[in-house]
Amino acid sequence: MQNFTLHTPTKVLFGKGQIAELANQIPAGARVLITYGGGSVKSTGVMDQVYQALKNHQFEEFGGIEPNPTYETLMKAVELIRAGDFNFLLAVGGGSVLDGTKFIAAAVAYPEDPWQILETTGSNITEAIPMGSVLTLPATGSEANNGAVVSRRSTGDKRHFFSPHVQPLFAILDPVVTYTLPKRQVANGVVDAFVHTIEQYLTYPVNAKVQDRFAEGLLLTLIEEGPKALENPKDYDVRANIMWSATMALNGLIGAGVPQDWATHMLGHELTALHGLDHAQTLAVVLPSLLEAKKEQKRAKLLQYAERVWNLHEGTEEQRIDGAIAATRNFFETMGVPTRLSGYGLDGSTIPSLIKKLDEHGYRSLGEHGDITLADSQRIYEAAI
Amino acid sequence: MQNFTLHTPTKVLFGKGQIAELANQIPAGARVLITYGGGSVKSTGVMDQVYQALKNHQFEEFGGIEPNPTYETLMKAVELIRAGDFNFLLAVGGGSVLDGTKFIAAAVAYPEDPWQILETTGSNITEAIPMGSVLTLPATGSEANNGAVVSRRSTGDKRHFFSPHVQPLFAILDPVVTYTLPKRQVANGVVDAFVHTIEQYLTYPVNAKVQDRFAEGLLLTLIEEGPKALENPKDYDVRANIMWSATMALNGLIGAGVPQDWATHMLGHELTALHGLDHAQTLAVVLPSLLEAKKEQKRAKLLQYAERVWNLHEGTEEQRIDGAIAATRNFFETMGVPTRLSGYGLDGSTIPSLIKKLDEHGYRSLGEHGDITLADSQRIYEAAI
Repeated sequence: MQNFTLHTPTKVLFGKGQIAELANQIPAGARVLITYGGGSVKSTGVMDQVYQALKNHQFEEFGGIEPNPTYETLMKAVELIRAGDFNFLLAVGGGSVLDGTKFIAAAVAYPEDPWQILETTGSNITEAIPMGSVLTLPATGSEANNGAVVSRRSTGDKRHFFSPHVQPLFAILDPVVTYTLPKRQVANGVVDAFVHTIEQYLTYPVNAKVQDRFAEGLLLTLIEEGPKALENPKDYDVRANIMWSATMALNGLIGAGVPQDWATHMLGHELTALHGLDHAQTLAVVLPSLLEAKKEQKRAKLLQYAERVWNLHEGTEEQRIDGAIAATRNFFETMGVPTRLSGYGLDGSTIPSLIKKLDEHGYRSLGEHGDITLADSQRIYEAAI
Repeated sequence: MQNFTLHTPTKVLFGKGQIAELANQIPAGARVLITYGGGSVKSTGVMDQVYQALKNHQFEEFGGIEPNPTYETLMKAVELIRAGDFNFLLAVGGGSVLDGTKFIAAAVAYPEDPWQILETTGSNITEAIPMGSVLTLPATGSEANNGAVVSRRSTGDKRHFFSPHVQPLFAILDPVVTYTLPKRQVANGVVDAFVHTIEQYLTYPVNAKVQDRFAEGLLLTLIEEGPKALENPKDYDVRANIMWSATMALNGLIGAGVPQDWATHMLGHELTALHGLDHAQTLAVVLPSLLEAKKEQKRAKLLQYAERVWNLHEGTEEQRIDGAIAATRNFFETMGVPTRLSGYGLDGSTIPSLIKKLDEHGYRSLGEHGDITLADSQRIYEAAI
């Protein structure tokens, strides 16, 4: 096991009716700015529950944070906060609203051009406005970690940053609010949480038994519950198990003390930035291709994954590994998420542009061994056509 | 899944050499009181590492906190702190030092008789001195939760309390410091962590898949690594896996959203209070007997436990359940911890006294269903002779 520091201070309030707890979680005198996305939180009644909980608080709203939140949109909120002297942010939405709100929280107090926050991956942040969230889409884990991803429309960039200053104080997770999600978002969320887990698990063994078994527990749960959520959208326990899996997949716990990969995410980000694919769609395209390409380096963990997650005990090692990769691809397809670029109308002709962007962003040696070169990335994209 | 609130704010610093991090975790101007137990931390060199890390801090020491820490001893530290104006406590030791230090931290500021803290299970605590720890014995999980158990010599009581005010700010976990532990303490720690997990797992199903699989992951790890720690005391990964399992077994995570039992602990506490048995010894005695007695109420989870933890797939349900209980007993015995009262020279003649104490403490309806009456407890003790 590798050395680690693990700090998970976000308080989680989980279950039916927990939105009412907002009243006790946000300081009484706070000037709250509620951030949200395209407005579905209003049509589904989630925002009404928020209003009810905050009836004794002072608050205003900022809507319109888009999927893959953009610097351009977020800077409008930053101006609003500077003008209105808000001192608490409440994100109501999914990972994009969460991520965008983290950026807003840090940018308000940032003394120079806030795009630097992304260029320095957050290392220069010294303060941020406190924030909490009501999560509506289980997927990214952003509700209980200190990371965020932001895009810039003008340049086609998609970059991430981390800072303890943007760790949410609390996260309210009511599985009931996920009943009305479109199938595509449900499927994306399951794939996203699954690949987050894989990025921290499918590397090389360091004899970290607890972390491995926790990761396997999340993968098994997502495999079992994901298809059920598409079939029976109002099954509370199914929604609860998915929601809790997604938070646990990226709050730092399963990645503590083990190697991490994240190459699938880096290659995926460029696909979103250039072609606008949903984040989870890019992961479903890149991961099977990457596992195929890095079969030797990931051999021991692929065998463990085949056995413990996909129950593959028969055949040669090669057959079990191939079986596990095929089962992974099949799981994504079963969730309705295509795993080939062609499934999104792409023919691979833009791969040189994707590689150029990876190069510009400095992603020339990715993966847990840092051995995925630009040439490897090119092969991974090509094998995914 | 049941509703829950989960807050795990203790920062964990895990691995070789992490004691040096103390220098950065304790505020520079703090007046630190280091608390410890019988002095083994001095002979093993752990305290030297602490001194080295705190060479630029102001500190004094309070030693002599005993296993099953007593109110009588702890109140001496309270007087010392009041006289010396200390404002940070650093516990260096195992669960008893941690628990004792939590009591000290709360008692210093408690306006009335501090024994009330135990009588009200901590509900009246409004402040406590901040604390952190260097853990030397993985077992109780006290390093990363807000609970503690304290005994009173004068009355033979053993009581617990909880308060968010005594949640440690940080926990330093260096598996290397556990190399020199006596075998009995290693075995006790493994049994303790195992039973903590069981108390939050082996109840009745609520379809909490993540929590179940996390619990099973801890049980499997302890079963695999426990005996290895006795055989190869200096195997770093074995020690690391046990240490991390013990913390994860009782930081709130696996118990969030599921029913909990804790009857084994309540029956065990009376055995320690009356006969001075080690905490883990009492758990090893009570648990198999309790599982046997509550077979019907725990049926579904016992079958899951048999299958997923002990790999028992053959035979009737009854045979698998019996097999799982026998395997549990055998595991404790393999660790060198007897599972019968007779193994500790007790013949059961004091059972009426134990039942009287349970009655005095109000433990007349224990377990996840509250259906373990005093008569049931008596049968559980008797079957454990």
